[in-house]
This record gives sequence, C-alpha cells and structure tokens, in this order.
Amino acid sequence: MLEVVEAKTTEDLMAEIGQRARAAGRILAIAPADQKNKALAEMAAAVRVATPDILAGNRLDLEAMKAGGQTAAFLDRGTLTEERIEAIAKALEDIVALDDPVGSVIAAWDRPNGLKIERVRTPLGVIGVIYESRPNVTADAGALCLKAGNAVVLRGGSDTINSNRAIHAALQKGLAAAGLPEDAIQIVPVTDRAAVGEMLRGLQGNLDVIVPRGGRSLVERVQTEARVPVFAHLEGLVHIFVDKAADLEKSVEVIVNSKLRRTGICGALETLLVHEDVAHSHLPVIVKALQEKGCEIRGGAIVRDICENIVPASEDDWSTEYLDKILSVKVVADLDAAMEHIARYGSNHTDCILTEDQATADRFQREVDSAIVLHNASTQFADGGEFGMGAEIGIATGRMHARGPVGVEQLTSFKYKVHGTGQTRP
Amino acid sequence: MLEVVEAKTTEDLMAEIGQRARAAGRILAIAPADQKNKALAEMAAAVRVATPDILAGNRLDLEAMKAGGQTAAFLDRGTLTEERIEAIAKALEDIVALDDPVGSVIAAWDRPNGLKIERVRTPLGVIGVIYESRPNVTADAGALCLKAGNAVVLRGGSDTINSNRAIHAALQKGLAAAGLPEDAIQIVPVTDRAAVGEMLRGLQGNLDVIVPRGGRSLVERVQTEARVPVFAHLEGLVHIFVDKAADLEKSVEVIVNSKLRRTGICGALETLLVHEDVAHSHLPVIVKALQEKGCEIRGGAIVRDICENIVPASEDDWSTEYLDKILSVKVVADLDAAMEHIARYGSNHTDCILTEDQATADRFQREVDSAIVLHNASTQFADGGEFGMGAEIGIATGRMHARGPVGVEQLTSFKYKVHGTGQTRP
Repeated sequence: MLEVVEAKTTEDLMAEIGQRARAAGRILAIAPADQKNKALAEMAAAVRVATPDILAGNRLDLEAMKAGGQTAAFLDRGTLTEERIEAIAKALEDIVALDDPVGSVIAAWDRPNGLKIERVRTPLGVIGVIYESRPNVTADAGALCLKAGNAVVLRGGSDTINSNRAIHAALQKGLAAAGLPEDAIQIVPVTDRAAVGEMLRGLQGNLDVIVPRGGRSLVERVQTEARVPVFAHLEGLVHIFVDKAADLEKSVEVIVNSKLRRTGICGALETLLVHEDVAHSHLPVIVKALQEKGCEIRGGAIVRDICENIVPASEDDWSTEYLDKILSVKVVADLDAAMEHIARYGSNHTDCILTEDQATADRFQREVDSAIVLHNASTQFADGGEFGMGAEIGIATGRMHARGPVGVEQLTSFKYKVHGTGQTRP
Repeated sequence: MLEVVEAKTTEDLMAEIGQRARAAGRILAIAPADQKNKALAEMAAAVRVATPDILAGNRLDLEAMKAGGQTAAFLDRGTLTEERIEAIAKALEDIVALDDPVGSVIAAWDRPNGLKIERVRTPLGVIGVIYESRPNVTADAGALCLKAGNAVVLRGGSDTINSNRAIHAALQKGLAAAGLPEDAIQIVPVTDRAAVGEMLRGLQGNLDVIVPRGGRSLVERVQTEARVPVFAHLEGLVHIFVDKAADLEKSVEVIVNSKLRRTGICGALETLLVHEDVAHSHLPVIVKALQEKGCEIRGGAIVRDICENIVPASEDDWSTEYLDKILSVKVVADLDAAMEHIARYGSNHTDCILTEDQATADRFQREVDSAIVLHNASTQFADGGEFGMGAEIGIATGRMHARGPVGVEQLTSFKYKVHGTGQTRP
C-alpha cells in the first residue's frame, strides 16, 4: 500500500479513499444485522490474535514519542498493554449486543386514505473521524460506524500510526471474514495535515459528517474549517445551580461527585452557582467538603466573606474549563440570575439544578439551552453509556441532527416508507 | 427603516439582523404554545385587515415586473388577489391547529439507578429562508418557524419586495399583539445579492439553517455556497418501477396520476421503469393511457418496438426532470436493474414500486436510498400535507437532521432532561 501512496498526491489519495468509502457504504447500508455482528465478533477475535503485532506497532510509536519528548500523560494515553487490547476486543463485543438501528421504525401512522406511513432509520453514509493519540478510537469508532451501517474514514494522530495500522489490519480481517467490504473501515495512510484538509472539505462529496475526538485545538480547527456537518463539543463548561430549596446533604454529595469523581472529563463540574438565600447555610458546608478532598475554590467577595481559603476569582474564571481540582463559585440573586449566567458563560453541554421544588426544576430544565439538563443528579452522568445508549463516539453540543451523547442511533438518518393499495392523489 | 438601511453597509445591516434574530429566538424558545398561537391568530386577522395595503404593494411589484418583461407564469406566481390573501390568512390559522412541537417528549426511559431520562423537542434557533417571487412564502415560512419556536430571517425575491413588506407588516402586528418580539420574523430590507451572501455565511454565527425555496439555480447556489446546514432538494427525479408482479389496472391509475395530476411539482413522475416480463402486457396499455392525456413518451429501441408514437430517448433523458407532460420509459431486466438505474440517475427524493409481491416491495423500499419510497401509491403524495404533517417549508433530500417533508417537527432540535433524586456516579 505504501508504494501506491507515494505515487499519488494527497488530494488524489483522499479522493480515492472517499470513493471507496462511498461504494462500501452502499453495501453496508443494506447489510443484515447478523452480517454486521459477525464482522464485529470476528474483529474482536482478530484483535486478540493480533495482540503481539499491535504491541509491536505500539512499541515503535512509543519510542518515537519518547524521542520527541512527549509528556507522561500523552505517553500514557498512547500506550497499549495486553489488558488494554483485551478491553478493545471486549468493547467490540459490547457493540454486537446493541440493537441494530438500521431499519427500526421510529414512527408509523395511517392516513384517512388508507396509506400507511413509516419513518425508518437508515445509515448516514460515510463518517470521518479525526482523532488524537488514542489507538482504541480506531476500533471503537470503526465498530460504532459499522453497526449503524456507515462506512468510516479514520484519521488518527501521527504519533500512534503504527498502533492504528495494526488494529486496523485486525478490523479488516473481521470484515473480510463476514463477507463485508474491507473499505468499510479505512485509515488514512499518510500523516500530513493536507489529508485532514481534504476530509474537512468533504472528500469531494463522499464524506457526510466529521467527528473530531481530541483536545480543544483539534475540535476548534474542525468546527471552523469543515465544509460538512460536525458532531462535536468544544468544551464542557458545566454548571450546577444550588437553588434556595436545595437539600444540603444531597447537594454536597452531588457536587463533590460532579467535580471530583474524574476532573478531566467533559461532564465534570466547573462553576457552582448558589442562591443567596442558602449561601450562608449551604455554601460553607459544600466548600469545606470539596476543600477536604483537595479542591481549590475560587470566588468573589461574597463567597470570600462566607467561606474560608477562597482564591479570588477573575472574570476569566467564569469561562474557564479547568479539567482539574479547581471550582469557581458565585452567589446569585435567584433562578433567573443563575440562568442568565449559564446563558452567558455556558457551553450548551451539561448543566444541573439542585432543588426540592419541582416547579423551579421544571423551569430550569425547560429554559437552560444545553444538550443535557439534570435535576438532582451528578453532571458526571453526561455519558452515552450512563444514558443506556451503549458506546458513544462523543458528545455533541450543536442543534443539528445529533445532540448530547452520539451513539449508534445518532449515526443514522431516516426515510419514509409509504405503503399503499393503489391510492392516487385527488 | 430605509434611512437606517442606507446609512449602513449590507454586512453591518445583516449582522444586526442576525443579532436581533438570535435575541428574539431566545424569547421564542420559551414562549408558551398559547402565546405563539395567539400571535398566529392575530397575524391572520392583521393580514385580512391589511388586504388593501397588500394589494397596493402587489400592484407596484406587478407594474415593475411587467415593465421588466417577465413571463406570464412568473407574473401569475407573483400576483395576489383578495382570494389569495384570504388563503394566506387561512394557512396561518391552519398552523394554529398543529400541535406545538416544543417540549414534546420524543422518548423517555428509566435507568437502573433510578434516573429518568427524557428526550424533549426544542427549537432549532434562527432559520433563514431564501425564496423567489411567491409572496405567500413570507407568511407560510414565518408562521411555521414561529410555531416551532424559531426566529426567522426572510429574504424574498426582489420582484415582490413591496408585497412581502406589506405582508410582513401584518405579521409584526400579530407578534406585537401577542407580546412577542417583532424581531422574531424579519425580512431583509435590501435586495442586493450581498445580503444573500451574508446569509449563506451564517450571519456571523446567528443563523442555524437555511431553507431555499425556488428554482434549481437558487437551490444550487445555496447548496454550493452555504456555510450552514441547508434543508433542500435540488430536483425530484422521480421513478416508478413496474415489477413483473404489478397489477395492470392499478399501475395505469397510479402512473397516470403520478405523471399528470400536476406536472410541475417535485413529486411528479419523470421516469418509468418496466420489468421485461410484463413489458408486452403492461407497457402498451400504460403508454396509451398517458398519450391519450397528451403526454409525450420517450424511450429506447425496445420501448419503440412494443409501443407506438415513442420519441427516441437520449442519455440525457434519464437525468432530466421534465416538470412537463413528458415521460421517459425504460424496460429493465429485473428489480436489481431497476434499483441500479435509480441509484445512478435518481435524486434521492421520491421513488415508487408497483407490485403485488410483498417481498419484492420490501426489498425495493429497504434498498432504494430516497427520502420517500412508496409501494402501490402515487408519487404525488410526496407532500407534508398528504403525510399528515400539516404545512411544510419544503422537502429535503439530504441525510442530516431533516429528510423528506420539512414541517414543524423537522424545524426542531432536542435536549435531554435527566431527573434524579440525588444520584452520584460510582
């Protein structure tokens, strides 16, 4: 394959990848659930068999990363072990167990003239995934797209190209064993940025949607430059509002969990808003619980008056996604002030209200314009698996097509089947 | 308003329109159904009261169009009468009667940890409608967007700017009477193409989707240049396949209706494919019925052998949307050949199979990749009203978000409401 690559421009290479993906997508679109599931199971088996090859590829990548002076956290994300490869295989098997979305009836109704109309799920087409140095995404994204009947073009980080190639070879064995086209899951074999540019331009009409998986700068570039739809979120600037009718004990538990269970995920709490009526009663207890677990609290004059050891907050704090053991805290006059703050600084990802007053919760959940709006539950539930959707390819904050966790159903489109008995239109 | 317009660049003007639309959209998004319905009813009343003003505006437009040498058909589309204005008012009232999509629960489920998850419809945001010289679109599109809680920016054809302004003034009276922001429905007050360019670039992030309504060249420009999602179809290259198990009598009725009920709509039949096993038995009867009603039939050698008065078809005929009393006809070997023809020449809009064999119908409806796939029914049912959706803003052939008739539901997004009792994530 490399010989072919070297003889072509990136533009020609990517155009051909797009054409092959489109052709494979046509076959996948009508492939029965059993055949796709067989491919997924064979892919899991092939990944297990290929463990030595995948580890060998990963060693090459890690040596290059170390030589390049990458950070320990970066190296850890890019490192594969036998255990992590088994987890990749297991994740493929989990996708077998999901319901096949293709062909499922979303809605059905009858017309007075006897026509029966069904709205039925269909695949989206060809999906492009652009991701950074996490080799497991090669298998996860490939499998999720396949389950929904889509062809996929994977462009992973150059740092893990050898790991990705070894995993991809196993996926192709699984496809072949099930009689599905190997072009259903392609990886971009070159690492230049021009290849990404071709994907952002839509592979000459052969790419229907792009999913970026990685840090802010990657997502920002994709959202700015893509000429095709993008399923993504730039950041998760997650708020919790402690209403005047919030239960204190429940609040402490939910807030500590939302902030500290894992600080690096997009559903982690970043800003706490507290109704002034309970600022004195609730805030010191909440702040103390967080500080005891090593969390830094930043706040303005009112917060500093009420609590101890508060770092002064600047205007920037309200728009900072810390992804760390830091929380900004603000006392607000009421529900409206809380919702105004969220509208101004939020990222339409996940926000939460803590209250025992149902009418207040209803208003918050109706009016806050975020993909996920919770009442009395940890913001760390913002996750496709926790929603019961199975695997997800990411969380989207846009309003078009997919919003919230993007699982197999969100990777589908639909069509209308109209069943008649010879009806004509008057 | 014109004074203000003249003092600003089109770019500044359009940016301000976008900002005002976004602000109005935030208010509309949480407006109760009653308030929106009151606005719609008041709009209908205001249109009736404004009939003399609307007719006066329309006279100005018609004089300019006549001076410009426009065709009779173009003039007819742009002409308003008391009857047509009453129809506009009535259409507004019909939209009152539709269910409010905002807040309706699309899906709801419980998690083992007690969380209750709801997927609930929300407005899309700000919708741009770019249309040609049909003044009724000003009211139809404005009202449909309002019903779904969206702000709308309307850019009508310059030929009917005075008619549009008079209708728009009535719509704004209705909004004001219901206490809703007048910026919820704005018309672009200038007629230069640069204004369209600003809309295609998305009004600096304040336009979420564009709906073009008009001829092929308008839709083509919008689809090519828009940097925001577009709900549209370029053409309706509609096929019917007469299977070997097709009932002859039913076929004649459905085909004549599909082709000739109205030839100028996107659901009108353009190409007939006939299984070779029934070409001799069925095709002459079908062709004769069409010819008796003045339809020209174009076909290849086989069709000319079987039928009389056939115009030779060229390769171009298979990709021509006639929108006229002309039909291209081809004899095909089997179902696969028919589906291959549709995949190659079709426009993913509407296609139909005539057969008494359920398994064949199932395969056709599953495998043909069109927004609407019918079995034993006229293709002229490809219409939101006929689907029972109420008014539609158009028919979309893309796979993202909306597909098929675009009614109020398709003008919405969704969010997740998660209801807890203090759950934290382990």
